[in-house]
Amino acid sequence: MMAAISLAKQGEGRTAPNPMVGAVIVRDGTVLAEGWHRIVGDKHAEVDALDRLDDSGVGATMYVNLEPCCHFGLTPPCTDALLASGIRRVVVGMIDPDPRIRGNGVEKLRQHGLEVDVGVAEAECRELNAAYLCAARHKRPFVVLKAAVTLDGRIASAAGDSQWITGPLARQEGHVLRNTMDAVVVGSGTLLADDPSLNTRLPGGRNALPVVLDSHLRCPQDAKVLTAGRRPVVFCGSDAVDRGLQADIVRVTTNSKAQLELNEVLSHLYDRGIHSVLIEGGGQVHRSFLDAGLVDRIELFVAPKVLAGGPTWVGGTPFDLDNAPGFRVVKTRVLGEDIQVTLGVFDGECGAE
Amino acid sequence: MMAAISLAKQGEGRTAPNPMVGAVIVRDGTVLAEGWHRIVGDKHAEVDALDRLDDSGVGATMYVNLEPCCHFGLTPPCTDALLASGIRRVVVGMIDPDPRIRGNGVEKLRQHGLEVDVGVAEAECRELNAAYLCAARHKRPFVVLKAAVTLDGRIASAAGDSQWITGPLARQEGHVLRNTMDAVVVGSGTLLADDPSLNTRLPGGRNALPVVLDSHLRCPQDAKVLTAGRRPVVFCGSDAVDRGLQADIVRVTTNSKAQLELNEVLSHLYDRGIHSVLIEGGGQVHRSFLDAGLVDRIELFVAPKVLAGGPTWVGGTPFDLDNAPGFRVVKTRVLGEDIQVTLGVFDGECGAE
Repeated sequence: MMAAISLAKQGEGRTAPNPMVGAVIVRDGTVLAEGWHRIVGDKHAEVDALDRLDDSGVGATMYVNLEPCCHFGLTPPCTDALLASGIRRVVVGMIDPDPRIRGNGVEKLRQHGLEVDVGVAEAECRELNAAYLCAARHKRPFVVLKAAVTLDGRIASAAGDSQWITGPLARQEGHVLRNTMDAVVVGSGTLLADDPSLNTRLPGGRNALPVVLDSHLRCPQDAKVLTAGRRPVVFCGSDAVDRGLQADIVRVTTNSKAQLELNEVLSHLYDRGIHSVLIEGGGQVHRSFLDAGLVDRIELFVAPKVLAGGPTWVGGTPFDLDNAPGFRVVKTRVLGEDIQVTLGVFDGECGAE
Repeated sequence: MMAAISLAKQGEGRTAPNPMVGAVIVRDGTVLAEGWHRIVGDKHAEVDALDRLDDSGVGATMYVNLEPCCHFGLTPPCTDALLASGIRRVVVGMIDPDPRIRGNGVEKLRQHGLEVDVGVAEAECRELNAAYLCAARHKRPFVVLKAAVTLDGRIASAAGDSQWITGPLARQEGHVLRNTMDAVVVGSGTLLADDPSLNTRLPGGRNALPVVLDSHLRCPQDAKVLTAGRRPVVFCGSDAVDRGLQADIVRVTTNSKAQLELNEVLSHLYDRGIHSVLIEGGGQVHRSFLDAGLVDRIELFVAPKVLAGGPTWVGGTPFDLDNAPGFRVVKTRVLGEDIQVTLGVFDGECGAE
């Protein structure tokens, strides 16, 4: 199953709104074929593996991290391909929560006499598809908040400098994150201060969908984000004036403080097939997502320095000690000269959280 | 040698101004006896081990992390005891930088025909006695700055609450630090805000010397620190008024901002036999030690929460990005719900740094 998960990960950032899936076909302890879902619209992992079989699959076992589908979507049902293959046993990591499947795939295989085991390495399988599971359950993308900070939590100096807080390895890891997420989001403050490209600068990388939260449409006509990668989506309030920005302008409700309604923002992105978003600041945007209870994970890249001034990665009014938002430390690691801290926010609903 | 270092560590926080030393006597691969220096004034490790020999040490080898002394101090020279013992070979971790020894111990043993190897596991031996080496070289104590902070570097909420930022395991680790350091230091701001006891609340623990930096002698007569453990040392400016505080009052030079001259503070503590100090805040005191270049190591206990307001662990005026103090990540570890980050500051002069 761990091999199937590794195969599945090769599709990371390419499969949404589909899940990542890998499949391994084994007989008598020998791997006969492997497959994975490369990109939405392409073959599913099970069919990919079956297509690579040199001879018959009769009597073999397939390991697959997610329940095979049993409906016609962009491709025919995987269950049909399995039944035609002669495969005798299927080991499934977890049930697919898609209402068209949700146990029906397993049921169909069993009805036709196949042996099916479900729940092998399920925690790892859930973690793999945390974004897909979050989307299936909450009808919104999985939200990862990312910041490069100092040991006193600053994302820029008092003079406004933020390039660079962290070292080259941490910055590269930021691009690795962008490469695996469906969209990357910044607020207009960060856009105006830093003029970020929001593209993925990594060999073999692909660009995430750039998204700007910009209540008043302050985004300049020559902002780098408009031309550096994919055509951005710019969310604004209903009365913002569009001066012909080269972007998809989406108007959503604003609150009394002219802040965009984030549930609407995420809902729109979900409807576009976006299952994971990386929020890259600034502090006020992070605060808004935290206040709205819409953060699933936090990735902090911590540089071992102090600035003793400047904005911190969570802005807004101070919390009291007893109502300060608290997180769960998932892991820490040293990354070049810096530290990466991964934090979980929610309680187990989304993936392995 | 690693066994000798482990033995030595049992004296941590008790041996200053002496170093920590452990000794193991071995013959034909069998450990004959072990010893260590328990507390200043007591037997040295070499003699402690020799005293525990059941029979003769003739032909045996002693492993000891620091060069044996060859002078009369509080106890007679260890070299004499070694020469009388019949030990044939001595393996030494590192030369003792004490000017009365500094190679003379090794020389004396060799002159009397013993085989002596020097520099075995030297890096570990230097790290063990980082405080002793710092004191020997700089004539000042080894300075460790410690703070319990949030992910945005706060040591208290905007309302002033700091109890508790971190969880029970991190707080216990703070007492473990106090148990191994010779003195624990706070500024008057922290004293007035938190009224800390500064004692060691740990089974079998011993109290470090409490030290207060208090330019204007604002320490209240009923401050807990005055009665919770050992009699404190309170440093103040030359014109501060002493109202009969139950403490040793030491007057030092102040600068134009009424801040105490920290070199004088550390020099006084060094003269009292203090080889290591733990600075426990607040942010202004940390800043002063950093500005003075007097920090050797930093221990941060980071709680996975944010406060979005309140004082940070390094106070004072903001730095620019290109002159922000930078540190070296020594290690990170998860400690209960929190993260411990150990940072090195200086360049190799003190111990293993």
